[in-house]
Amino acid sequence: MTMLCLTRTVSFSAAHRYRRADWTEAENRRVFGPNVSLHGHNYRVRVRVSGPLDTRTGMSVDLGLLDRVLEEQVVKPLGWRDLSEGVEGFGDRIPTTENLAIYIWERLQPALAGSMRLEQVRVYESPELYVDYQGSDDPEARR
Amino acid sequence: MTMLCLTRTVSFSAAHRYRRADWTEAENRRVFGPNVSLHGHNYRVRVRVSGPLDTRTGMSVDLGLLDRVLEEQVVKPLGWRDLSEGVEGFGDRIPTTENLAIYIWERLQPALAGSMRLEQVRVYESPELYVDYQGSDDPEARR
Amino acid sequence: MTMLCLTRTVSFSAAHRYRRADWTEAENRRVFGPNVSLHGHNYRVRVRVSGPLDTRTGMSVDLGLLDRVLEEQVVKPLGWRDLSEGVEGFGDRIPTTENLAIYIWERLQPALAGSMRLEQVRVYESPELYVDYQGSDDPEARR
Amino acid sequence: MTMLCLTRTVSFSAAHRYRRADWTEAENRRVFGPNVSLHGHNYRVRVRVSGPLDTRTGMSVDLGLLDRVLEEQVVKPLGWRDLSEGVEGFGDRIPTTENLAIYIWERLQPALAGSMRLEQVRVYESPELYVDYQGSDDPEARR
Amino acid sequence: MTMLCLTRTVSFSAAHRYRRADWTEAENRRVFGPNVSLHGHNYRVRVRVSGPLDTRTGMSVDLGLLDRVLEEQVVKPLGWRDLSEGVEGFGDRIPTTENLAIYIWERLQPALAGSMRLEQVRVYESPELYVDYQGSDDPEARR
Amino acid sequence: MTMLCLTRTVSFSAAHRYRRADWTEAENRRVFGPNVSLHGHNYRVRVRVSGPLDTRTGMSVDLGLLDRVLEEQVVKPLGWRDLSEGVEGFGDRIPTTENLAIYIWERLQPALAGSMRLEQVRVYESPELYVDYQGSDDPEARR
Repeated sequence: MTMLCLTRTVSFSAAHRYRRADWTEAENRRVFGPNVSLHGHNYRVRVRVSGPLDTRTGMSVDLGLLDRVLEEQVVKPLGWRDLSEGVEGFGDRIPTTENLAIYIWERLQPALAGSMRLEQVRVYESPELYVDYQGSDDPEARR
Repeated sequence: MTMLCLTRTVSFSAAHRYRRADWTEAENRRVFGPNVSLHGHNYRVRVRVSGPLDTRTGMSVDLGLLDRVLEEQVVKPLGWRDLSEGVEGFGDRIPTTENLAIYIWERLQPALAGSMRLEQVRVYESPELYVDYQGSDDPEARR
Repeated sequence: MTMLCLTRTVSFSAAHRYRRADWTEAENRRVFGPNVSLHGHNYRVRVRVSGPLDTRTGMSVDLGLLDRVLEEQVVKPLGWRDLSEGVEGFGDRIPTTENLAIYIWERLQPALAGSMRLEQVRVYESPELYVDYQGSDDPEARR
Repeated sequence: MTMLCLTRTVSFSAAHRYRRADWTEAENRRVFGPNVSLHGHNYRVRVRVSGPLDTRTGMSVDLGLLDRVLEEQVVKPLGWRDLSEGVEGFGDRIPTTENLAIYIWERLQPALAGSMRLEQVRVYESPELYVDYQGSDDPEARR
Repeated sequence: MTMLCLTRTVSFSAAHRYRRADWTEAENRRVFGPNVSLHGHNYRVRVRVSGPLDTRTGMSVDLGLLDRVLEEQVVKPLGWRDLSEGVEGFGDRIPTTENLAIYIWERLQPALAGSMRLEQVRVYESPELYVDYQGSDDPEARR
Repeated sequence: MTMLCLTRTVSFSAAHRYRRADWTEAENRRVFGPNVSLHGHNYRVRVRVSGPLDTRTGMSVDLGLLDRVLEEQVVKPLGWRDLSEGVEGFGDRIPTTENLAIYIWERLQPALAGSMRLEQVRVYESPELYVDYQGSDDPEARR
């Protein structure tokens, strides 16, 4: 069985700021620097999935399904939003690139399970900065 | 006298939304679409200036000065900000890409005058969308 | 009245080859080189339009309209196609980057007229090669 | 012994379409969507090889050899071609990005063996979509 | 007669430093800053030419000829070189981006004359900095 | 404990050439080709580090610290330099992309140890060529 990885990129624009309500303004500034102020990014998300080659079609994953899931689970809840407020399922986590990668993994993993294996979520905040997440190391939790 | 144009790019991240207080929510949504919601971008600004070649130095503009002016007049007032609120000198204009290009022109033109000629301000909201502004067509106003 | 230019990029994938039925194989090869063979590109089209700033909205063109026209007049007729055969309105022109730029201008000019002024069509065959077309120089024909 | 990976990118343009002769038109359309129509791409291929550092030259692989092999085994058979027809050694496989990655691996692996270790073939159909192949998992088959 | 512009990009790598032998070290440092030290760039050169559309071929310029001239007149004399020393025809000019644009214009203009019209030379020292040159404004000198 | 990787890119410009004093000119030319001549590049360095998620801040590494270390250990010693001569700690190694990756690893590993784990150094000589280094495979040496 020949396994291949396919990586798809989607983009969305969003605002965010980093701030803990239980910290003083000074503490927030010291830890988060200029990120305490509301600003925003053109985010790019690279999602890596794998599957076995179907020799009849020459495809390893259902790209149409992947695109629909990315639209529904990534672009819709995060695009055109202030990530610091009221994103469904995000809770009160600080909207860092790290937490965005984890959030996207949490939403994609169940939505894709059964059809393809989610290998990695990469979130670019800018061309010069990105974060990768490959899921919990606990194999029970992973699959 | 040999004239040349030099173009410099700077980047900043900011949030914005489009909304007129004197319009109803429905009117705002109809005209501005998803831009009524707070979101953000990694903006890139390409500033084109010209000057005569100094044959001793091989330079047509003072790039060090240009970089200092861009930092002071573009990146500082606009970076790490919500452009919809309280940007110095922006007034209550809607923070569209058009108005950003005009605002940057208004600040750069006087700051550069005397040392180099400002030819064009180009603002990229994303790699797929940009706006150019070359200043008022009124030659009195221009120089 | 403040005029601004807005530039929008759209992409599509297409195949093409250059070949004149009234030339011998040798003539075709001599003039068109490897382009006589069917191959393809990820084309990018940068469309530049201008309009007067509406100070109430901060916009100079109706981007929603522009996007619908680009989808209808550029991406739909040219995407997922062999440009050498049966593109609506293309006739028997050789599908060079030049002819694509002219074709896109011919379709956009009437579709946008009345709402915004078409300034330039730029077609990238690859990141290293593009063609610009600004319409006929005959001012009667232009407007 | 210090091992390093070097990654080289080459590009080529080609046409393709997905279609099985033993399927009905409706079946082909259902599975392959718009890919049933002839279109094309500017492909980019990133080839990752590894080797031990030669401390006299500071090099881990022979880049001149790698470039000649990429030209001979990738650009020549695939560039300026319709991948759906008569590519040497491609057989009747559907010319998907997955099958292109496997084909390129099959050709590079023997051509490079002895001089450097082929680690990965990455094929970009567009900046937003790529496939990776690392060869069969069977270690016998691999080396 | 339909005129179109075609723009071609070529790249080369070179070293340079800015230094006048008739200035003191302090003067050189004050004017040229860190550019007094030898360093280098991956230069990209965008050459814009125009010509009338040949309706039989769909082409406005002879791209094969343009590519040969760019190789001979730009890549060969400037690539793999220290631009501060002994570039043929460069004389003792400081190797700034401005002087490179002028030098490339001087070499391309006669080499292309008769077949196509050279419209602009753009030299990128980096993605964030480029210079444009359109030739002398003296129309006698230009043609 | 949730581990994440963060990747940061920095850039610098430098000159280099490949040449062994103990080899003849002919030997140098045969092995190093055009690299025997002084030329230069806009280098990009992608540094990949990992750390455990701090759930209070949503961050896995101290980006401010990472940026200061990259400036001090990469950009300052390598930028605006001829890498073939007198780079601190580089010794008489040939300034290949491989040796640059190893040098950057050697400097970052101790400077970052204690705060974050260095996972990989990637050095781009151009967009079409990069080298990765992940440190010695000897686990004693690595940590």
